Amino acid sequence: MKAVVFIIDGLGDRPNKQGNTPLKDAHTPTMDKMAKEGICGIMSAVDIGVGPGSDTAHLALLGYNPYTTYTGRGPFEACGVGVDVKTGDIAFRCNFATVDDNLTIIDRRAGRIKNTEELEQVLDGLKVDGVEVIFKQSGGYRAALVLRGDNLSDKITEGDPHKEGVPIPEIKPLDNSEEAKRTATILNKVIKIAYDKLNSHPVNEERRKNGELPANAILPRGVGMVPNIQPFNEKNDIKGACIAGTGLIKGIAKMVQLDYIDVEGATGTPTTNLKNKADALLNALNTYDFVLINVKGADEASHDGNYELKKEFIEKIDEMLKYILENIDKNEVYITLTGDHSTPIEKKDHSADPIPIVIWGKSVRTDDVETFNEFSTYKGGLCWIKGENIVPILLDLMGKSHKYGA
Amino acid sequence: MKAVVFIIDGLGDRPNKQGNTPLKDAHTPTMDKMAKEGICGIMSAVDIGVGPGSDTAHLALLGYNPYTTYTGRGPFEACGVGVDVKTGDIAFRCNFATVDDNLTIIDRRAGRIKNTEELEQVLDGLKVDGVEVIFKQSGGYRAALVLRGDNLSDKITEGDPHKEGVPIPEIKPLDNSEEAKRTATILNKVIKIAYDKLNSHPVNEERRKNGELPANAILPRGVGMVPNIQPFNEKNDIKGACIAGTGLIKGIAKMVQLDYIDVEGATGTPTTNLKNKADALLNALNTYDFVLINVKGADEASHDGNYELKKEFIEKIDEMLKYILENIDKNEVYITLTGDHSTPIEKKDHSADPIPIVIWGKSVRTDDVETFNEFSTYKGGLCWIKGENIVPILLDLMGKSHKYGA
Repeated sequence: MKAVVFIIDGLGDRPNKQGNTPLKDAHTPTMDKMAKEGICGIMSAVDIGVGPGSDTAHLALLGYNPYTTYTGRGPFEACGVGVDVKTGDIAFRCNFATVDDNLTIIDRRAGRIKNTEELEQVLDGLKVDGVEVIFKQSGGYRAALVLRGDNLSDKITEGDPHKEGVPIPEIKPLDNSEEAKRTATILNKVIKIAYDKLNSHPVNEERRKNGELPANAILPRGVGMVPNIQPFNEKNDIKGACIAGTGLIKGIAKMVQLDYIDVEGATGTPTTNLKNKADALLNALNTYDFVLINVKGADEASHDGNYELKKEFIEKIDEMLKYILENIDKNEVYITLTGDHSTPIEKKDHSADPIPIVIWGKSVRTDDVETFNEFSTYKGGLCWIKGENIVPILLDLMGKSHKYGA
Repeated sequence: MKAVVFIIDGLGDRPNKQGNTPLKDAHTPTMDKMAKEGICGIMSAVDIGVGPGSDTAHLALLGYNPYTTYTGRGPFEACGVGVDVKTGDIAFRCNFATVDDNLTIIDRRAGRIKNTEELEQVLDGLKVDGVEVIFKQSGGYRAALVLRGDNLSDKITEGDPHKEGVPIPEIKPLDNSEEAKRTATILNKVIKIAYDKLNSHPVNEERRKNGELPANAILPRGVGMVPNIQPFNEKNDIKGACIAGTGLIKGIAKMVQLDYIDVEGATGTPTTNLKNKADALLNALNTYDFVLINVKGADEASHDGNYELKKEFIEKIDEMLKYILENIDKNEVYITLTGDHSTPIEKKDHSADPIPIVIWGKSVRTDDVETFNEFSTYKGGLCWIKGENIVPILLDLMGKSHKYGA
C-alpha cells in the first residue's frame, strides 16, 4: 500500500455574507466522491487556535512536532535554496540591500536587483574567526547565509530593521552565553566584510553607472540553529518524496531528507501546470511509498482576496484529482486530501480555522459525509485531528506501523 | 473586534430519568438563537475526564495551562482577598478556629465568628526567622496567610486536619530540601505565635464572657507557591477584564492581572443582580477588548440538588443574554457561551461531563445545531475542545493572533 498527502495550500475559508466559501461554492464532484467514499473530518495542522505558516504546517503534516523542530525560518530557507545544512549550523534569510557610507539603509531590496550570482561568490566560502561562511543567493535580492563552526548560538538579534533610513543594527547576544556573544561578534564581522567587498564590486560600480542602486550590504534575519531532525524515511521506514512549487516547502522536504521531485511548470501560482504535477505524482507512486504533494494557487488567490479565482482554482484541482483517481488503483493507494491552513478571503492571511480533511482508500471507515467542505466534513469519522496525526494514521492503514506494547 | 467569554458556572448536567437536564428543559430562546447562528461544540475546561474546580477551569478558560500554573488554592485565595502576592510567596487559606490549652481543636470555625478584622492585625506584618508574614481575614472565620522571603518551599504538610477533637497537626517537610524544612519550622512558629497572641486577645476575652467560642488559633491549608504567570494582557496583546461575583474567580483574575470589575448586587448566588452584571459587561466593552463574565447561581442550585432552581436560573440568564444581544453589534463582538464544568443535580458536585459551548459572531462557520444543550451541541463544528483552546480561537477571529511560522 502507498499513500499520498495532497495539500491544497490555504484551502479553508470563512463564510461570506451568503454563508458560502470558495470550496463550498466550487463544483467539485471528485472531492465530493472522495468524501462520500472516504472518512472525513477537520484538521488543525499545528494546534487548535494556531494559525500556522506553510513551513510549520508542513512539518506537522509530515509527522514532526513543529514546536521542537521549527527553530526559525533561516534553516528551512537555506535548506530550500540548496545549502547542504548540518545540525548546529546557524542559518539566516538575507536581503541584498543598498546602504550609504554610514551603513544607513537606503533600500532594503537593493533596487530589486535581478542577478546576484556574481555577488554571492565574494561572500561564499569566507572564514571568519574559524567559522565557515556559506552564502547562496536565492533569486533576485534574496539569499541565505549559514555560519558553520563550533560553539555557535542562535540566541542573537537580527540584522534587518525591516525599515529604511536607519543603520544596519548591531547584532547583540540575547543571553549571557559565550556562544551567543561569539556568534554576534562573528555576524557583525560578516556584515562589515560584506559591505567592504560588495561596495567596491564591479557589479555595483556598473549599477551605479547605470543609475541603479548598488547591492552593497546584506541584512540577515530569521535566525535559527539547524535542528537535529530524524530523516522521514528512517523515522517511518518507508520511502517518501515531495512535489511542491515553492522554495519554502522544498526546504521542509530537504530538511527531513525527502526526495524532492522537480516538476516543469510548477510555479506555486494559479497558473501552475497541474497536469504535469499529476503526472509527476503518478510517476512517483511507481517508486515511492509516500508522496506529499502541495498545490499552492488557492493560497495565492486568498492572499489577494480573490474569491472567484480561489473557487476556480479549486475546481481545476478537482479535475486534477479526477485524473489522478482514474489512474491509480484504490486497492493500492490512500489519498489524504486536505490543506495546510485556512487563508480566508476576508483576512487575506493565514488563520487558525481548521481545514477539511478526507482519507480515501481501501478499508477506511466510510462515514455519512457526502460533500467536501468546511460545513460538512466536521461531522465525519475523523472528528477534529491535528496535522501530526496524519502520517501515523496512514502508516497504520498501510500496514507500516509498529505496535506500541505487546 | 471584541470578545466576551460568558461562563454559566456549573452549567452542564446529566440526564434525569426522563432524559432531561435543566438546560435542555429550560426555555432558552436566546441561547438557541446563538446556537443556530454560531458554531457549537462541547468543551472540557481542563481535560477529558477531569472534573475541574472553578479555579483550574477558569485558568484554562483564560488560556493558561492549569497543570503548570495552578500550584494550590492558597495563592489564588490570597490574591482574591487582596494580598499583593509575588512569585515565590508561599500562600495558604486559613480558618480561625477554637482550640483548648493543649491546642486540641474544639471548633474548626471558631463559632463561626463574624468579625475578625481586629484579630487579623495581630498576625499581619510579623517577622519570623527573617520571613514576612502577611495575614488577611476574608470574611468571618476565613483568612489568607502568606509567607514571603527567600529559600521557602510549598512542599510541606497542612495545618488543618479537617476534623475536630485532634490537635493542630505539626507541619512537616514533604521532601528533604532545606527549603521545605525551613518553611515547616517557620509555619509551626507562626501557628504557635498566633495561638499566643490570639488566646489572650481582648476580642476573645469578650467572646468568652459572652459564652462564645474564642478564635484563638489558625489552621492553614491549601498551600502553594505563587506561580510565575504571564499577565493576560501582555500574553495576548489585548486589554482584558473580568466580571464575577465570587472571590475565587476574583483571585484568578487578579493573578493574571486582569482588571476586575465590581458589580453592585453580584453575589454569586441565584438572587444575584443579573441586570447590573449585564450593564457592567456592556459598559466594559467600551473600554476592553476581552471580558470574561462568570454567573454563578446555576452551580449553587446544582450543589443543592435543586433541579427546578437551576432550570429557572438558566432561564433568567437567557433573558440576560437577550438584553446583551440587543445592545451589542454582532459585527463588533464575539460571544462565547459556555460553562466552567458540569455540576450534575444527581451528584451535587462538579463532574467531568463536558459542557456545551457556542461561539457566536461574525464569520464563524455556522453549523447545523439549532438548540443549546448537552444533547445538541456535540454535533457542531467545534467538536470537543478544551478550555485552553478558547482564547486562541477568539484571538484568531478577532485578528489579534500571530502566525506561527512563515
